[in-house]
Amino acid sequence: MKLLITGGAGFVGARLARTLLARGTLAGKTLTQIVLADQFAPPADLMADARVQARTGALLAQAPSLADEGFDGVFHLASAVSGECEADFELGLRSNLDTTRALLDGFRLSGKAPRFVFSSSVAVFGPDPAVPMPSVVTDTTLPAPQTSYGAQKLICEHLVADYTRKGYIDGRAARLMTVTVRPGKPNGAASSFFSGIIREPLAGVESLCPVSAEVSHPVASPARTVDGLIAVYEASREAFNGRTAMNLPALNVKVGEMLAALEHVAGSAVRARVRFERDERIAGIVANWPTGATAARATALGLKPDTSFADIVRQYIADCEKLPNAAQTLAGLAR
Amino acid sequence: MKLLITGGAGFVGARLARTLLARGTLAGKTLTQIVLADQFAPPADLMADARVQARTGALLAQAPSLADEGFDGVFHLASAVSGECEADFELGLRSNLDTTRALLDGFRLSGKAPRFVFSSSVAVFGPDPAVPMPSVVTDTTLPAPQTSYGAQKLICEHLVADYTRKGYIDGRAARLMTVTVRPGKPNGAASSFFSGIIREPLAGVESLCPVSAEVSHPVASPARTVDGLIAVYEASREAFNGRTAMNLPALNVKVGEMLAALEHVAGSAVRARVRFERDERIAGIVANWPTGATAARATALGLKPDTSFADIVRQYIADCEKLPNAAQTLAGLAR
Repeated sequence: MKLLITGGAGFVGARLARTLLARGTLAGKTLTQIVLADQFAPPADLMADARVQARTGALLAQAPSLADEGFDGVFHLASAVSGECEADFELGLRSNLDTTRALLDGFRLSGKAPRFVFSSSVAVFGPDPAVPMPSVVTDTTLPAPQTSYGAQKLICEHLVADYTRKGYIDGRAARLMTVTVRPGKPNGAASSFFSGIIREPLAGVESLCPVSAEVSHPVASPARTVDGLIAVYEASREAFNGRTAMNLPALNVKVGEMLAALEHVAGSAVRARVRFERDERIAGIVANWPTGATAARATALGLKPDTSFADIVRQYIADCEKLPNAAQTLAGLAR
Repeated sequence: MKLLITGGAGFVGARLARTLLARGTLAGKTLTQIVLADQFAPPADLMADARVQARTGALLAQAPSLADEGFDGVFHLASAVSGECEADFELGLRSNLDTTRALLDGFRLSGKAPRFVFSSSVAVFGPDPAVPMPSVVTDTTLPAPQTSYGAQKLICEHLVADYTRKGYIDGRAARLMTVTVRPGKPNGAASSFFSGIIREPLAGVESLCPVSAEVSHPVASPARTVDGLIAVYEASREAFNGRTAMNLPALNVKVGEMLAALEHVAGSAVRARVRFERDERIAGIVANWPTGATAARATALGLKPDTSFADIVRQYIADCEKLPNAAQTLAGLAR
């Protein structure tokens, strides 16, 4: 089978590709080709696999040719992130809304109705005066996005549902929780600090936490996130249960608990590299996010949240240790 | 003040324009100009008013020039209807989604942030296996559209909310109930029969009812619908209460009760012109609509539903009697 991963050079996309290449199959079919479409070139280890091809460039421009190319399945992960979309409204419209629409229309016109997993986000939820948000959101909580990113994700959920109803794709929208710990550098996401406060101190670098230790948030490790995307892809239509978007499982955790887990796993010297310095812009965005999430439909698919934040920290350390730059990314660990 | 009504030559748009011209003011300001943008030319009585101008043509193409022209307020009513959108997917995308987006972007780029009332629809609601629909929907029911029309209306609700959050417009989305009795000919809406079963027998013409007498539905008269749109426009942001869409008030009524009201007002000979003949396509669409609606937020604005369906029938007859073609539209009434 031939698979497309948009955002395939990004962190989640590349990890998904690695996981799938290692498995060799998806939904019972042998993976013969994975196309990674991204504005950046994919990591070298992926390109070294004969089954991998890159389509590097702006996705909006590529959408028609990708649709013509024909795929059995699609993971549509490419997205501008929340902070970027707040700073640049047109970027968000173009990268998140127009690009998704162009892909959907491309596949509609192709007549091939691929299976299509859309990565939505817990950012669709927010409080509105008329719609008080429960502190823990469920699959059936009414979304009231408070960011353009969240609004665009929600809009795309409904596009995916309607194109699916019409038979143009076999679409499934899964709401990703905040993925942590992300490697690399901070990105433009308002949630970037949920990784930074773990990643930076492990690398021996100071990190500023822009919100209070009492802030609670639904998170998931990269591994569990990828497991969730694959399970949503592999679910039968009946098991997916409807066309509305599904929450992926979350570990609901406070910032203070994240730091306690960091100290438990890596020691007090590492923990001490995190300093609280409130950032009103970030804190304002985060204040409109849910403090936790449940995922009844994902649970029915057999998916589970991470068992503890300490396990998430350990997963990050183990991932770093496999890579050539481990000495750098874990420079803060007494070893 | 200068006002734009899209779909201003349509039934609701023209009635709104007449009501506003008779009032002379909107939100405390004198109406100096009403521009009616529509693919069709407005009715002659409207064009006879010196305050009225027409912009006749496809709205999508007109959007940039309309935005440049500059308006203090906008009622965006133009829309392809539900049956059309099911039959022609691209028409729905273009007329409902792309056109709304073009208007919003036009006003965003103009920097003038007009007040903007968007006419959404009770068709945003529907049952999904994962989201059972309550039989009576409220302001906070989770929408799960089961038609492209409903999906496009819901998507535009969220665009309006986000452009409002960003300050590009002062937007308010109001969900219209099924408007009955509409004059004229059946249109492509799946709900068209909710008018046809009253209008046709009053004109002395037989009418087929495509669903059972037990089907219940939230309806509103043209007058109450226009009152609702005006109240939503005139509400302060605080009184509108949030940015999510608001249900307009509904009279929740069964088809059998509608026909009993017709008989009560117009006699058994008129009622006898309605024959039940099930249309599976229409019945299938209607089966996914709510059987009733509540409107707590609209009630807080002072809006009320019609008091009875008999009153709605009387309103239609009184409206017809004012027009030159009364003899034809009411040919079925013994007078």
